[in-house]
Amino acid sequence: MSILVVGSVAFDALQTPFGKVDRCIGGSATYFSVAASFFTDVDLVAVVGEDFTDEDASVFNGRRINIEGLERVQGARTFFWSGEYGYDLNVAKTRDTQLNVFADFKPRISEKQKNPDVLFLANIDPVLQYEVLQQAGRPRLIALDTMNYWISSKHDDLERVFRAVDLVIINEAEVRQFTNEANLVKACRQILDLGPSTLVVKRGEYGVLMITKTAIFAAPAYPLENVFDPTGAGDTFAGGFLGYLASRSEIHDKELRRAIIFGSVLASFTVEKFSLDRLREISINEIHERYQDFRALTHFEDFEK
Amino acid sequence: MSILVVGSVAFDALQTPFGKVDRCIGGSATYFSVAASFFTDVDLVAVVGEDFTDEDASVFNGRRINIEGLERVQGARTFFWSGEYGYDLNVAKTRDTQLNVFADFKPRISEKQKNPDVLFLANIDPVLQYEVLQQAGRPRLIALDTMNYWISSKHDDLERVFRAVDLVIINEAEVRQFTNEANLVKACRQILDLGPSTLVVKRGEYGVLMITKTAIFAAPAYPLENVFDPTGAGDTFAGGFLGYLASRSEIHDKELRRAIIFGSVLASFTVEKFSLDRLREISINEIHERYQDFRALTHFEDFEK
Repeated sequence: MSILVVGSVAFDALQTPFGKVDRCIGGSATYFSVAASFFTDVDLVAVVGEDFTDEDASVFNGRRINIEGLERVQGARTFFWSGEYGYDLNVAKTRDTQLNVFADFKPRISEKQKNPDVLFLANIDPVLQYEVLQQAGRPRLIALDTMNYWISSKHDDLERVFRAVDLVIINEAEVRQFTNEANLVKACRQILDLGPSTLVVKRGEYGVLMITKTAIFAAPAYPLENVFDPTGAGDTFAGGFLGYLASRSEIHDKELRRAIIFGSVLASFTVEKFSLDRLREISINEIHERYQDFRALTHFEDFEK
Repeated sequence: MSILVVGSVAFDALQTPFGKVDRCIGGSATYFSVAASFFTDVDLVAVVGEDFTDEDASVFNGRRINIEGLERVQGARTFFWSGEYGYDLNVAKTRDTQLNVFADFKPRISEKQKNPDVLFLANIDPVLQYEVLQQAGRPRLIALDTMNYWISSKHDDLERVFRAVDLVIINEAEVRQFTNEANLVKACRQILDLGPSTLVVKRGEYGVLMITKTAIFAAPAYPLENVFDPTGAGDTFAGGFLGYLASRSEIHDKELRRAIIFGSVLASFTVEKFSLDRLREISINEIHERYQDFRALTHFEDFEK
């Protein structure tokens, strides 16, 4: 079982009420790959500049991550994002975005990468996401993420990709923005009507809602006393979620629900420290322990009349 | 088993994107009593004016609600609230508040009412809440609700009541406002440190978080395709929650969790129609069915390595 991810590897500058870092590793594909690699083999397709050192690349070392598809462009710089959070850690304020090598990114899927079990199109231009779909074979499961910027600037291109994937991972506000429908359940059904069988709605500190044609599943986020840096939580969630699914022989409601919890577990670790610092130090045992914590957090018993 | 509630019975004028009503019955104690009466006997202490007719009082008829404590003041009018909701149904905009009889409300607990099993102090002036505590005996469980207005205008009076109750039911934003702490879990622990053993945090469409000294329980709200009027959802939740608890011989973690779900079930019905219209037509069977729906909504299985 393997998973192919196409997305960004980046440098971030971050400021939160709890600290500040001028250059740390970030990017959707980075968080995604490290999270997914706890469960399955990951093939990474992304681009970096010549400022991306071997030490930076060490985030992928010793994990089930193949970085042959990580293109290094000489004479250019890596995608850079600078963001700031106030005490309301739900809202990131972008201070600077330098696309650099990412501006001309043309993802190329090699012959070896063409038949992944699961394909994840991280948050990039929906035109590129569609081109990747044309190159890849027919994975068992295709999923994508997106963002408000593409919904407003490339709505029709995004809709074309929605029609071609099995699973959409998206923020709550983006569901409403894409459909222009205030009721979340109705809005989700509109997206499901385009083709995807499953919609996974990220609600930040309120957790996740998963909607399929026949069921709804709600999972809370893990209530943490110390949220240090929310950057990458969504991509980490997607990595844990799809990584777990890729590791299973069958994908059905029961496994989708477990996968939502594993994604939530991974995301809850990410926010405990800056960048991928926490994700890099945890073990699969700690992941399984927090899975049990989620059971305790959500369990209630049946009621006998 | 019985429950005593002290709060408001009111007339509301409501406008939502889905309709408009100029005069309907409302008030915290009204929603609370009707919801709680599905599970236990309710004693209601509140005040109305001479404009409150027998037809208005029919909302309590045929239910396990004793309205001997509903004082009628001649020559005065019932508490009136006018509110408006936009498409974001989470936020009510108050257009008008006329306290009327409520301005001089001095709750009097009769001899017969003095030893309830459970006492609920609905959202009224914390000075009055404290006076009620002085009059009542020592119920098995004392709970209170409050609002942002009292937190800013009578913080110390409110803290005094917090110190004297077992259980606080409060909105998420109010927890942060009262403690001036951004992290919700830390903020909750600060309130628990004042004395209550249990804090129930209402998060609107995101459900409920219950925090005790030893456990946290998270329950989602029921995802509805048609939310018609959110007025009274919080008081209905409190009614279902405490009504169920009052009906149980023991109050422990397992029952508290079930109670949270019953509260959430009742609240999910309330918002489906204006005022108490939906609450008035449902049966205990529909409540039990939706309890099962909550099981399906939240259930996920253990993971075997």
